[in-house]
Amino acid sequence: MNYRKELIEQILPFWLGDAIDRKEGGIFTCLDEKGNIYGEEKSVWFQGRALWTFSKAYNVIEKNPAYLEAAKCIYGFLPKCEDTDGRMYFTVTREGKGIQKRRYYFSETFAAIGCAEYYLASGDETALFASRKYFDIAYDCFTGKRRNEPKFNPETHAFKALSPVMIMLSTAQTMRAVDKEFAERYDGIARACLDEILHGGFLTERALLENVTRDGAFSDTPTGRTVNPGHSLEAAWFVIAEGILTGNREAIEAGKRIIDITLPLGIDQKHGGMIAFTDALGKPPVALEWDMKLWWPQCETIIALKLAHLVFGDEAYARLCADMEDLCEKRFVDRENGEWYGYLHYDMTVANTLKGNIFKGPFHIPRLYMIMSVLNETGDIGKYMGA
Amino acid sequence: MNYRKELIEQILPFWLGDAIDRKEGGIFTCLDEKGNIYGEEKSVWFQGRALWTFSKAYNVIEKNPAYLEAAKCIYGFLPKCEDTDGRMYFTVTREGKGIQKRRYYFSETFAAIGCAEYYLASGDETALFASRKYFDIAYDCFTGKRRNEPKFNPETHAFKALSPVMIMLSTAQTMRAVDKEFAERYDGIARACLDEILHGGFLTERALLENVTRDGAFSDTPTGRTVNPGHSLEAAWFVIAEGILTGNREAIEAGKRIIDITLPLGIDQKHGGMIAFTDALGKPPVALEWDMKLWWPQCETIIALKLAHLVFGDEAYARLCADMEDLCEKRFVDRENGEWYGYLHYDMTVANTLKGNIFKGPFHIPRLYMIMSVLNETGDIGKYMGA
Repeated sequence: MNYRKELIEQILPFWLGDAIDRKEGGIFTCLDEKGNIYGEEKSVWFQGRALWTFSKAYNVIEKNPAYLEAAKCIYGFLPKCEDTDGRMYFTVTREGKGIQKRRYYFSETFAAIGCAEYYLASGDETALFASRKYFDIAYDCFTGKRRNEPKFNPETHAFKALSPVMIMLSTAQTMRAVDKEFAERYDGIARACLDEILHGGFLTERALLENVTRDGAFSDTPTGRTVNPGHSLEAAWFVIAEGILTGNREAIEAGKRIIDITLPLGIDQKHGGMIAFTDALGKPPVALEWDMKLWWPQCETIIALKLAHLVFGDEAYARLCADMEDLCEKRFVDRENGEWYGYLHYDMTVANTLKGNIFKGPFHIPRLYMIMSVLNETGDIGKYMGA
Repeated sequence: MNYRKELIEQILPFWLGDAIDRKEGGIFTCLDEKGNIYGEEKSVWFQGRALWTFSKAYNVIEKNPAYLEAAKCIYGFLPKCEDTDGRMYFTVTREGKGIQKRRYYFSETFAAIGCAEYYLASGDETALFASRKYFDIAYDCFTGKRRNEPKFNPETHAFKALSPVMIMLSTAQTMRAVDKEFAERYDGIARACLDEILHGGFLTERALLENVTRDGAFSDTPTGRTVNPGHSLEAAWFVIAEGILTGNREAIEAGKRIIDITLPLGIDQKHGGMIAFTDALGKPPVALEWDMKLWWPQCETIIALKLAHLVFGDEAYARLCADMEDLCEKRFVDRENGEWYGYLHYDMTVANTLKGNIFKGPFHIPRLYMIMSVLNETGDIGKYMGA
């Protein structure tokens, strides 16, 4: 696939029409098959993520003023997504009034990378300051300095989760690449996150686990056995990229190991595609949608396989990557209306024709296309990472 | 199907083995295909619901001491599921230590009906007092006297939901039948809930809506357009039963209307079965699992159709009911290991082999079997309701 061309012609334009709210600012992501808005509630994750996407596309794909204009429109909306305590909401109204606020601070991590990348694209220094502010809030939540009421009783649900660690690694990677003044700080955070992913108990012989006990042990419970293969493969390429950027051979090898143990757990040999969840010991997965094929795990699988082939040279990765690309082209891509379908049934038929919702917007797919463009053209993940 | 025989031989025994925790008290519901426990976390909903089920089976099906013994074991565990403020948890550890507490007070409504029915079965007056206590807490939450931190900002997410109203109707119906001393109070609450379901804005020309604005208007948003057909049909039979018990002809007719508008929205003409969610205007449904076939909407559909046939005499209801019964027998019932599968794909293949989890335990299925036993034998819903 010509990722650069498709990104420019099929993917980004889908989100550059009515999705950009030129009246109130920000971006709508609840778009149906044809790009019509079916809900005006705005995802705060996607204000930050779309800001990142359009800015990054401007920075690494082409200096298209439409990308910068969209980014500016979203950048201006971000302050409306903040609560009085500085934390961001999870969803807001069209006008930017808070609807739901969550304990999780992914809104802030995505706002941080969005602002950082927008600073690079626009040169607007206020965006750099904003990215630091959002990063600091997210990091204070991450370290526990800023306390959030826990969802589960920490005495009886004594887990630590992989998600915040891998997202913090990725966030620190972006901040390090952009905010040179504090690069050392971000580098230390990235190193600590990498260490936690590899040595915090998540990486076992069998799987990269989503949750382990607070002291890093396996818990033979539904929570402790949960594997999210798309997450695992996303973590794997974060880890390999970090290894390449910092010359850490152990990280590169560990990333390979994550890929090698995850593929057999996640690939559906019968119907194709990467499933959403599984249980590390083959017991019933908890999530209803465990065998559905969601868009983003396919994206992360392709990136991980592509990078693995480039770094390790094994042709098996290249073959698997090509198979997955074909499958996505046939089943997820909607040539008629643009973008990908987001949710396929276990058998790879379309389960929902929507193109966006609170969780699906312009992020994983354009990121895939940008990474693949850079890797296909240069073979150098560092070029994409901005290092 | 011989519901009475199947209930006694296939359904209840599945939950009377290791699921009953004879060491710590209570019931496990995370059971795999064969009934093995794959998770020890206990659902508080299901402590109350299973207590109700075994007690009700003892009261209306047969005086089997095993049912009473199981009920007693669960009854003794209920106090452990309470937090210090009297509210109940949503999940607890095997020993009864709180894991998660939610804003929703369904744990309390199910504990109330469980204790009420157990009082009838056992004659233990402490259970009657407990049922009043749980009912009062739930009712105080329902009326807002007991305030719970809202999940959504009430200024920007100004919805009222159908679920608490229909559950409160059903809870009040059970309390009224058991707790004669306060029957008038429960009767008033049931009447108010019925009025809210029929005249609160939920019942439109097109569907029984899950959420309407606080002043009862339709909201053209994903939340406002959500229809849960299984819920609608469950509400329909609650409403028809209430109409029969209280001689309210308007309620009986409204229940028929709910059934008639819901069936075309919910029945999957191609693959069969009742879907989980739809959008009243045909826009993309929000829930990932919208076209999956879950166990409980099928149960509620069969009950609604059976009752509709009995009350209105239209043979079309009887034919649809028989079709749905056949389908469930073929696709959901597991003759080899007992119980039903809970989660089928859109195409009626098994999506997950589990028999129980935090949301599926001995409730909708045994309730279906009990109601069908009584209706097939007597044709009188009042006999089941205990009126």
